[in-house]
Amino acid sequence: MSVPANTIYHFDQSTEKTTKWVYAFEEGNAGMRDLLGGKGANLAEMTNIGLPVPPGFTITTAACLAYLAKGEVAPANMMDQTIKAMADLGKKMGRTFGNNADPLLVSVRSGSKFSMPGMMDTILNLGLNDEAVLALAAKSDPRFAWDAYRRFVQMFGKVVMDVEGHHFEHIITQIRESEGVASDPEVSAEGWQKAVKEFKALIKKETGTDFPLDPWKQLELAIEAVFRSWNGKRAVDYRNHTNIAHDLGTAVNVVAMVFGNMGWDSGSGVAFTRNPSTGENVLYGEFLFNAQGEDVVSGSRTPIPIAKLQDEQPEIYRQFHDIAQTLEKHYRDMQDVEFTVEQNRLWMLQCRNGKRTAAAEVKIAVDQVTEGLISKDEAVARIEPAQIDQLLHPRFDDDAKKAAKLLAKGLNASPGAAVGTVTFDADTAEQLGKVEGKAVILVRPETTPDDVHGMLAAKGILTQHGGATSHAAVVARQLGLPCVAGCEDIRIDLKARQFSVNGVVVKEGDVVSLDGARGEVFLGAVKTIAPSFDDQPDLKTILGWADSVRRLQVWANADDPDQARRARSYGAQGIGLCRTEHMFLGDRTEKFQEAILAETEEEFNRVLDEVLLPLQRNDFYGIFKEMDGLPVIIRLLDPPLHEFLPSRESLIEEVATLKAKDGDSKLLAEKEALLHVVNLEHEFNPMLGLRGCRLGIMRPALNRMQVRAIFEAACDAAREGVDVHPEVMIPLTSHINELKEIQPLLLETARAVMEEKGVTIKYKFGTMIEIPRAALTAAEIASMAEFFSFGTNDLTQMTYGISRDDAERKFLLNYVERGILPKNPFQTIDQTGVGRLMEFAVSEGRAARGDLEVGICGEHGGDPASVEFCHKIGLNYVSCSPYRVPIARLAAAQAVIRERKAKK
Amino acid sequence: MSVPANTIYHFDQSTEKTTKWVYAFEEGNAGMRDLLGGKGANLAEMTNIGLPVPPGFTITTAACLAYLAKGEVAPANMMDQTIKAMADLGKKMGRTFGNNADPLLVSVRSGSKFSMPGMMDTILNLGLNDEAVLALAAKSDPRFAWDAYRRFVQMFGKVVMDVEGHHFEHIITQIRESEGVASDPEVSAEGWQKAVKEFKALIKKETGTDFPLDPWKQLELAIEAVFRSWNGKRAVDYRNHTNIAHDLGTAVNVVAMVFGNMGWDSGSGVAFTRNPSTGENVLYGEFLFNAQGEDVVSGSRTPIPIAKLQDEQPEIYRQFHDIAQTLEKHYRDMQDVEFTVEQNRLWMLQCRNGKRTAAAEVKIAVDQVTEGLISKDEAVARIEPAQIDQLLHPRFDDDAKKAAKLLAKGLNASPGAAVGTVTFDADTAEQLGKVEGKAVILVRPETTPDDVHGMLAAKGILTQHGGATSHAAVVARQLGLPCVAGCEDIRIDLKARQFSVNGVVVKEGDVVSLDGARGEVFLGAVKTIAPSFDDQPDLKTILGWADSVRRLQVWANADDPDQARRARSYGAQGIGLCRTEHMFLGDRTEKFQEAILAETEEEFNRVLDEVLLPLQRNDFYGIFKEMDGLPVIIRLLDPPLHEFLPSRESLIEEVATLKAKDGDSKLLAEKEALLHVVNLEHEFNPMLGLRGCRLGIMRPALNRMQVRAIFEAACDAAREGVDVHPEVMIPLTSHINELKEIQPLLLETARAVMEEKGVTIKYKFGTMIEIPRAALTAAEIASMAEFFSFGTNDLTQMTYGISRDDAERKFLLNYVERGILPKNPFQTIDQTGVGRLMEFAVSEGRAARGDLEVGICGEHGGDPASVEFCHKIGLNYVSCSPYRVPIARLAAAQAVIRERKAKK
Repeated sequence: MSVPANTIYHFDQSTEKTTKWVYAFEEGNAGMRDLLGGKGANLAEMTNIGLPVPPGFTITTAACLAYLAKGEVAPANMMDQTIKAMADLGKKMGRTFGNNADPLLVSVRSGSKFSMPGMMDTILNLGLNDEAVLALAAKSDPRFAWDAYRRFVQMFGKVVMDVEGHHFEHIITQIRESEGVASDPEVSAEGWQKAVKEFKALIKKETGTDFPLDPWKQLELAIEAVFRSWNGKRAVDYRNHTNIAHDLGTAVNVVAMVFGNMGWDSGSGVAFTRNPSTGENVLYGEFLFNAQGEDVVSGSRTPIPIAKLQDEQPEIYRQFHDIAQTLEKHYRDMQDVEFTVEQNRLWMLQCRNGKRTAAAEVKIAVDQVTEGLISKDEAVARIEPAQIDQLLHPRFDDDAKKAAKLLAKGLNASPGAAVGTVTFDADTAEQLGKVEGKAVILVRPETTPDDVHGMLAAKGILTQHGGATSHAAVVARQLGLPCVAGCEDIRIDLKARQFSVNGVVVKEGDVVSLDGARGEVFLGAVKTIAPSFDDQPDLKTILGWADSVRRLQVWANADDPDQARRARSYGAQGIGLCRTEHMFLGDRTEKFQEAILAETEEEFNRVLDEVLLPLQRNDFYGIFKEMDGLPVIIRLLDPPLHEFLPSRESLIEEVATLKAKDGDSKLLAEKEALLHVVNLEHEFNPMLGLRGCRLGIMRPALNRMQVRAIFEAACDAAREGVDVHPEVMIPLTSHINELKEIQPLLLETARAVMEEKGVTIKYKFGTMIEIPRAALTAAEIASMAEFFSFGTNDLTQMTYGISRDDAERKFLLNYVERGILPKNPFQTIDQTGVGRLMEFAVSEGRAARGDLEVGICGEHGGDPASVEFCHKIGLNYVSCSPYRVPIARLAAAQAVIRERKAKK
Repeated sequence: MSVPANTIYHFDQSTEKTTKWVYAFEEGNAGMRDLLGGKGANLAEMTNIGLPVPPGFTITTAACLAYLAKGEVAPANMMDQTIKAMADLGKKMGRTFGNNADPLLVSVRSGSKFSMPGMMDTILNLGLNDEAVLALAAKSDPRFAWDAYRRFVQMFGKVVMDVEGHHFEHIITQIRESEGVASDPEVSAEGWQKAVKEFKALIKKETGTDFPLDPWKQLELAIEAVFRSWNGKRAVDYRNHTNIAHDLGTAVNVVAMVFGNMGWDSGSGVAFTRNPSTGENVLYGEFLFNAQGEDVVSGSRTPIPIAKLQDEQPEIYRQFHDIAQTLEKHYRDMQDVEFTVEQNRLWMLQCRNGKRTAAAEVKIAVDQVTEGLISKDEAVARIEPAQIDQLLHPRFDDDAKKAAKLLAKGLNASPGAAVGTVTFDADTAEQLGKVEGKAVILVRPETTPDDVHGMLAAKGILTQHGGATSHAAVVARQLGLPCVAGCEDIRIDLKARQFSVNGVVVKEGDVVSLDGARGEVFLGAVKTIAPSFDDQPDLKTILGWADSVRRLQVWANADDPDQARRARSYGAQGIGLCRTEHMFLGDRTEKFQEAILAETEEEFNRVLDEVLLPLQRNDFYGIFKEMDGLPVIIRLLDPPLHEFLPSRESLIEEVATLKAKDGDSKLLAEKEALLHVVNLEHEFNPMLGLRGCRLGIMRPALNRMQVRAIFEAACDAAREGVDVHPEVMIPLTSHINELKEIQPLLLETARAVMEEKGVTIKYKFGTMIEIPRAALTAAEIASMAEFFSFGTNDLTQMTYGISRDDAERKFLLNYVERGILPKNPFQTIDQTGVGRLMEFAVSEGRAARGDLEVGICGEHGGDPASVEFCHKIGLNYVSCSPYRVPIARLAAAQAVIRERKAKK
């Protein structure tokens, strides 16, 4: 997967020579994320509020874009400005870059506008060479110096010179074996010296080029490699998944090195100012003595929890604790920080708003309002609506868990319930999960950025090693994927493609269940149940604040009383779509088939009236009771009749087989007769076929039966004191005359039922707007329809000429990946095309009927960007699946908050 | 078929009492067709220019609408005004209606705005009863009087009292037999007296009601029956077919009776002022002595040609000839007249613009310009464009005709070549022709208005009896159906469902061919060939005049050099659509399948480049040569790949059969492999699937090959001096990014070919606008596309959400018949919906690119109403099938003429 061909990098040649490409930390601030990247901007901010940040500077994202636009050539003057900045840096440090007698070492790190953890490249200890290492050894100790040098050569070889990492690992393994030690910290100075020598030989062999000894050359090459890493496979995959634009570029941060591995009075830590998994207001993180930052996150050695630092290094802990407080107050949000202690001196290396689970997001926001740190609006605005989806995902049924076989316990790294078949590498996970659409659990010793494409395609992650801030844990939390990390009980055998735990062997393809919130791994599929709001008081609080802000109502799509009850409990203010076709499925299919196959119109009507009418009446009655006081939009039968008949392909096959075998002639005749009916009903393009109101017009008895069932149920409920508000929705209208044809018949039925029952209820008749022509002739349609409901799925299909049944598989996802379409229009409303039709229909429809009720009932109703659009064009409500109601409530409130901001 | 449920009859209750419902002929004129109907308006006009018209008056269409709107109740005062008008009429005639001693008899005839010959009801001799008949007998002779009375009772019984006609015929047959005579004129006075008695008994028996003897009661009932006949089955069918609105209503004309059957100095005639079949400027028609008008058209007795009247009644002929001249000059058009001679006195009973064949229409228009009667614009404006389609329909190949078996010769009643299977009744013809889509020839002894639904569904009409103005001939000419009438050689056996001629028996289901221009009937299917303009100098003249008026260009859809040549000969100014998919059919399918089934991309490309490229280059080369100097738009491959693979259903069947039979395992494996590919390519909604530019984007090699073939051919032709103007059309664009993705690749190929060939040619790249979203984002699309071509077929499918492959069969035709849709939107552009998108796209597209070339290439390009719409919204051209080019040329000119008129 490479970056889309139509990506254009902004670069203004006319100002190339006069542009400032390099900013010292003192020159930047947190508001300059676009130009300096998140990391650079925050390093500048921390520097300027007086926190201990090593001296450094940032080469801008604009420089990166210029580099890419020019075909991987740095813009004029960029290196000159860098040389100048290095001189300033040297002054602050009292050393000179390139002076091998007293070397100044720097790190070179990527940093884009949006955090992409681990997606791009970093090089540490840059500035070392065969001479400088000796000076460093003299100043510190030889083991440290040679270890630093070998790390630098290793990273440089991999990142800048494209030598595959496993070659280096292989050399290290040999050295460890020859020295008879088990871990890297035990390797001697001589061992690392040998490693450097062999690394350089490896680089020469693999690339035909010598490892560069000139620090300036090293710096230039490293900067360019970081620029290029913007378009590496991992980074592009990640951006595609997280909808980050491909034309932003990355900044490069050059920072004076501080060493957490300069002995046991040194170390590195990674921490959050609050617990990113639960939101609890305590410092959360890990610290590893005598280590550099990547040792903490790599999971190769096990760090201590940050709280323990209080015992071991109380002064450092106090300093760090104070800094954390300062940062939270300054940024008004929970921070994720990296720091290093070099010989008892604390340095802040990074801070950013911390990634967190949805539960933590919600708790932190509510707590911070309570603490007076932020306003309610800020709390509402902060929460990514899609994220709270996690909170409403099914969790395991407690009884089912008790009954299931618990295999192992690990770290509860990212909450949620995941069930899937086990696989052991990212490529297979991607193939099974993304291409074949299967539920898979990716099981790895530990994950690295190279595994991200597999993680994206998995339902859950299980790792044997690594802690709460390990790569697997961080990425899983961010993706909302359940993750059990550091599950040391399991033994993974990658070759045999299986893991074993307490004598149980789980092979690739076996099913396991992960409870990410508890760190539990079960054998087999554990039953899940729907979540409840009652367990989530903070979410309730936030949504209450959201409700007081939003204008747009949120309704739900619900097809039975259970769904209606759930929708209401999630805050739905009505039912925007009750699909009656689901009521003809299951054990009713047979009865409905009986009607379809009826040979006379009388028989058809008899089955409808005697068999299906009572069932439908009962369906509706239950829904009306649940929705007491709220509107319920019931859509008349929408799909084509052949959806209720057996598959044509299997019938053809059966008939051919029976014929060829001279089988049971009675059965053959039956099957042939059925095939005949199925052939008659068959359509080449059923999406554009005989369904919706067309079916109602051709066979009015069907709709009449449904309207009778609706009004009988409504009258019955009303007599029991239920406040019913039925709204009858006619689907697939394309021409006003269709409504003129069918609506009077149905109104007549409604009136007749109310007369029979002696009850008068309020009701509406309206239509779906799901065919472009209906939107284009909205004024005409509104003359009959009392409400519009945009069926944005179909409207998108027809406006775009895309069949959802086929196109996603055939080309649409490919289009989105290649950037030909900015987004999948079935997930987020295409505002330019489909949205234009919607706006048109709203304005013409309302012009024709002032009190026209307009909503949307496609799947877009639960998509935050689409909800905002619906708010903007003035819809009355969005209707979405019950689980998405909270998301929509939040998104609708955020739309108002954004609108207010834009007006200021 | 009843009138559509949503028909609304205009009726203003507030003015009911003050409305003038009745107009004497002296009060009307030809401009009052809406109110008085065509017949009433023309009777008034003739009265006022001094022609001999019997006194009478018209009850308005408004009265009919009021009657229908009120639920079949006449409006207030209508009968009062009628009574007053009858009194005035009586004064002019010197008799009093209802005076049985000297009865005043009238005819009561329908007459709507548009002529619907024979579709509604007429009653003659109204005013007779048991007393009055005696007075009439005393004044004339008993046989005449009783004949008149029985005719009245018979018509009244059938039309007003709904007694089936065959009952009356049965009584007459018995009387003829009892008197031992063969024909009605030979029946005696006593015979007719007996008939009256038995008719009255029959009416009583069938209806339980007495035949009304009160003339006023007769009049009232007759008027209402005529009103009701507006919604009779025949009338509704006819209006549906001819697109006459159902809410117009009919007027009723009450006219003093004159009798053509008052002896051998009387008679009735039907005539055209010019020959309606050829257009020749001679009186054309028939006269029957001692007969009423319906005897002439019924075909039961054979009339004399009108020219013979000159010999037999020179004075009457002279009078009539003068009147014909006066009428033509007055109306400035050929007239169809009915007249009666009562005892040597000539009365004009009707005149109207005469129906005529397309050939006659064209000749008459050209002649009348030559004669100075009308202007060229009037000539162009007068011709119904759809009619000239007839002139361009295939005719029989002369050699094939010579080789074919000539069965019989009859009257050349309506020209054209028809081939079909024989059937003998209208219902079967309708079932086979309309429902099953087969070509049928309806063979009848003679036709009546009850046969019209079958005639509408037939390809041609053959009758045994009847002349050039017989029902079959008149209706066939109007419908543009080939008709051989009065083919007395054939003997029809309706029971055996066959006819025989000279020993040959033709059974139902056998195929015959009719040459309507020559009155020939052939056994079997005779080969047809395309017509040539050279045979039609008058058409060429008219179209030349049209060309000098129109602004809109007319291009053609042509897929090969032959079609291109024909299109050009018909006046096409370019090729608006060259479909390349047709070039992959026939014996090339196998080669293309080879490419589709290729297992590697290399193999796919190899087949494209080595096999298909040379073939395509050759296709295009021939077209460019034919279109020297004119633009040629070539559309890149549009359909989905599965269209080129075997049918999925048959493969499923074959595989199942092979499996069941344990058949050839190698063949089974082959078929299974093929089925696998077909399944992969299968789509649920191919219309919305992977085709058009989507295919090009997923497999760019296909389009690149095609563009290479286009430019190689164009360069080769250009080098030979041909003036080439290739325009490459990208199909199915929905998003500008699709063009951004594919167009640069194709431009690159074009440039490369021109460089290789060392030739530079002018060319354009553009796109189809056939997806609603493309129209909605026309401004964006025009940033890349140099031309738009509306694919109105697909645009209609998607805008309306209708699949043409299914919907016409499933509901669309039913919708049109029921009036739910005013027209089939695949025939005539839906201006309200689809048209709105088109207007939008034109205006936004042109705003973005001033010189954007915009045309239409759907089938609508040959539909006159759609051509007018395209003119109105400012398209550059319409493109249609070669045969329709002349129609479009004419329609484009008429659009200008109408526009000018509207501006005046």
